[in-house]
Amino acid sequence: MLKELKEKVFRANIELVKHGLVIYTWGNVSGFDPNKRLVVIKPSGLDYDAMQSDDMVVVDLEGNIVEGELRPSSDTPTHLALYRAFPEVGGIVHTHSTYATAWAQAGLDIPNIGTTHADYFHGDIPCTADMTEAEVKGDYELETGNVIVRRFDGIDYMATPGALVKNHGPFAWGRNPSDAVHNAVVMEEVAKMAFIAMNINPALTMSPYLVEKHFSRKHGPGAYYGQK
Amino acid sequence: MLKELKEKVFRANIELVKHGLVIYTWGNVSGFDPNKRLVVIKPSGLDYDAMQSDDMVVVDLEGNIVEGELRPSSDTPTHLALYRAFPEVGGIVHTHSTYATAWAQAGLDIPNIGTTHADYFHGDIPCTADMTEAEVKGDYELETGNVIVRRFDGIDYMATPGALVKNHGPFAWGRNPSDAVHNAVVMEEVAKMAFIAMNINPALTMSPYLVEKHFSRKHGPGAYYGQK
Amino acid sequence: MLKELKEKVFRANIELVKHGLVIYTWGNVSGFDPNKRLVVIKPSGLDYDAMQSDDMVVVDLEGNIVEGELRPSSDTPTHLALYRAFPEVGGIVHTHSTYATAWAQAGLDIPNIGTTHADYFHGDIPCTADMTEAEVKGDYELETGNVIVRRFDGIDYMATPGALVKNHGPFAWGRNPSDAVHNAVVMEEVAKMAFIAMNINPALTMSPYLVEKHFSRKHGPGAYYGQK
Amino acid sequence: MLKELKEKVFRANIELVKHGLVIYTWGNVSGFDPNKRLVVIKPSGLDYDAMQSDDMVVVDLEGNIVEGELRPSSDTPTHLALYRAFPEVGGIVHTHSTYATAWAQAGLDIPNIGTTHADYFHGDIPCTADMTEAEVKGDYELETGNVIVRRFDGIDYMATPGALVKNHGPFAWGRNPSDAVHNAVVMEEVAKMAFIAMNINPALTMSPYLVEKHFSRKHGPGAYYGQK
Repeated sequence: MLKELKEKVFRANIELVKHGLVIYTWGNVSGFDPNKRLVVIKPSGLDYDAMQSDDMVVVDLEGNIVEGELRPSSDTPTHLALYRAFPEVGGIVHTHSTYATAWAQAGLDIPNIGTTHADYFHGDIPCTADMTEAEVKGDYELETGNVIVRRFDGIDYMATPGALVKNHGPFAWGRNPSDAVHNAVVMEEVAKMAFIAMNINPALTMSPYLVEKHFSRKHGPGAYYGQK
Repeated sequence: MLKELKEKVFRANIELVKHGLVIYTWGNVSGFDPNKRLVVIKPSGLDYDAMQSDDMVVVDLEGNIVEGELRPSSDTPTHLALYRAFPEVGGIVHTHSTYATAWAQAGLDIPNIGTTHADYFHGDIPCTADMTEAEVKGDYELETGNVIVRRFDGIDYMATPGALVKNHGPFAWGRNPSDAVHNAVVMEEVAKMAFIAMNINPALTMSPYLVEKHFSRKHGPGAYYGQK
Repeated sequence: MLKELKEKVFRANIELVKHGLVIYTWGNVSGFDPNKRLVVIKPSGLDYDAMQSDDMVVVDLEGNIVEGELRPSSDTPTHLALYRAFPEVGGIVHTHSTYATAWAQAGLDIPNIGTTHADYFHGDIPCTADMTEAEVKGDYELETGNVIVRRFDGIDYMATPGALVKNHGPFAWGRNPSDAVHNAVVMEEVAKMAFIAMNINPALTMSPYLVEKHFSRKHGPGAYYGQK
Repeated sequence: MLKELKEKVFRANIELVKHGLVIYTWGNVSGFDPNKRLVVIKPSGLDYDAMQSDDMVVVDLEGNIVEGELRPSSDTPTHLALYRAFPEVGGIVHTHSTYATAWAQAGLDIPNIGTTHADYFHGDIPCTADMTEAEVKGDYELETGNVIVRRFDGIDYMATPGALVKNHGPFAWGRNPSDAVHNAVVMEEVAKMAFIAMNINPALTMSPYLVEKHFSRKHGPGAYYGQK
């Protein structure tokens, strides 16, 4: 079942490796089928070299395995929490990409101080609060999703399609798995740029109208970037 | 028409990817034909893998499409403003290359503190002023060109063939598209060197006669670098 | 003799080069056979391109050459000191990988401030004390091992499978040579992340329960990462 | 003439590109034949892709072209000044490699704070004084050599086989062209390590006896690194 989505999720996982965002098994991509309300996700701890499209695991939004021989990614409950809370999301990516993870370790939002950022993320990329001891010792991966969802209270999750989990690393999402990978690659790149820029000049700013301009140039009714 | 220039502009775009200055569709190169007074430019948002020489778009200096099925780069009005103001320029490059973009986000000129820089750029690589709200909300891409042109008031644009647009990223230019790409690659490299050097020793200086020496060794009547 | 272990040690050495941890001959891997109580180690100063599985040298735990035409790595006495003191270790890696070596030069432990680190290393990655003049002028490579062993007094060496030798560089270990290389690659990556994170926010912290959670998710009786 | 040395110098130039020390034509290698007292050097500004062994230029120690159709590197007088002053040198490399050049721009010696450094360079890698206006406006490339030679007053140039020219970049040397390239690669790597280490902990030190130990392990009568 869901052969096409499995292929898309598989290819999106491979794309992460090509873009240098993942070593070993440090990343996972999932995709959501809104009609069947099922999620396709990478199996846990499987080598990218050995992995095939058919190894992808199908789970429902409560985490029950619907199809697949292998265990789904240990981060599956985080993905599911995001799909349940963010209904427009069709693909989710988690990596430990170097610069975005370093910002997560620093515990700070990635500031929106350039048009590269504003082209894809409307605001700062939010870093979550510390997870409480109860959350960490409880249903940890579910609570990881919840801490992201709470952080997006009042933030348009499709306009700022990514978050940092404090001391952990980045999650990115999009309309489909490939879109989510694209946003994860951009997040890593803007995380690197912001690190360098802040070193050169800690007093960075960017005018709100420049943010609006760049974001709306690519998104929304007035978008005019790319081909029709 | 302009088959040869299309080929040059196409190859210059590919060159940007090879040198690691561009991911996805984050860059564009154009070339100018001084006899026909026409500009050849990369189409907007097209994948580099899929792109062919014939996809290049021909526009006049007012931005009217003269030939081509695809939309020209959304940055076309910026390129045109530069061609109109800088008559010796035959090629223009725009990228979001990591280190040069970080300097643009920092809002500072890239200081000329090494001979690598002075071999190609006579002075500091200027960063533009903030664009006003009217400029950003008005004809934004045209005004992006204008803010560069104003910044070069009193600066020899052929001796310092590049600029940073504040909070945005680098533009570089040259006598032809390939020359412009060369200058964009050098700008990224000197941006990286200046970042590292400033970290090691914030009190950097370079004597004006050393700048003169290196610039004139490669440029002007007394140049003696390379083959005759 | 020990044909299989030689092949594993050989391949682990090649793996170091593939992961970019080693240039020239700046690294070495060894493996331990617990039944025969013999160590297989890379020969000293041999090019990775020219090296073959059969070039690996077999030594006993006192450093006597049991088999092999070539001299063993000059770091052999360090490896042997670690095997003697850490009985569960089956593979050891030494490199001069860039970021881990820089932390060693800085003379500081790599702080455990992210789950990437905690997934593999339970605590901070310890940096040794300065070696005394007598140690350096005496049996230097042996004393290099001893200074590591002393630093692990009170630390579970299998839970934190790596160390920095001050002013020198990283050693990593594991249940077998491949596992040791994996830990060396992770150490380099977390060294890089910690460098970037500390630059962004010098006041880094991570809650002890988050460390416990991530370490135990991958290790010990309650581990649930990966396939069964 | 000097067919073998031309081949060695040619290959050493290619080696620079492979190790990522050179983009475009930003580097040059020369070799010295002590019997004929002639120098073989890369031609000026020639693309590495197009270059062949036979393009290498032969000059005498006064800079007269003895053989070759092309102009020698514009840095030839610097190489010659070094060969004249440093009789044991058989190969010289000049690059604008990123980190070493940044230290040159910072105007500081690369401090010897790690065994990676001490394995190859006995002391700090010295940065020259500022060149005077007369030197820059006079026989500039010759004076570039002279400023290095003066900086080595009291320093064993074979024990510390490299220098930084202030605001310019690194020169490295060795017994032959390949050895010089090796030292140039090491200098770039230790320049990077020292940059990172200094960021982590500005108060770096290394004991003199550790320096002695590592240098003498690889060099001199008591050396025991590598194969016999």
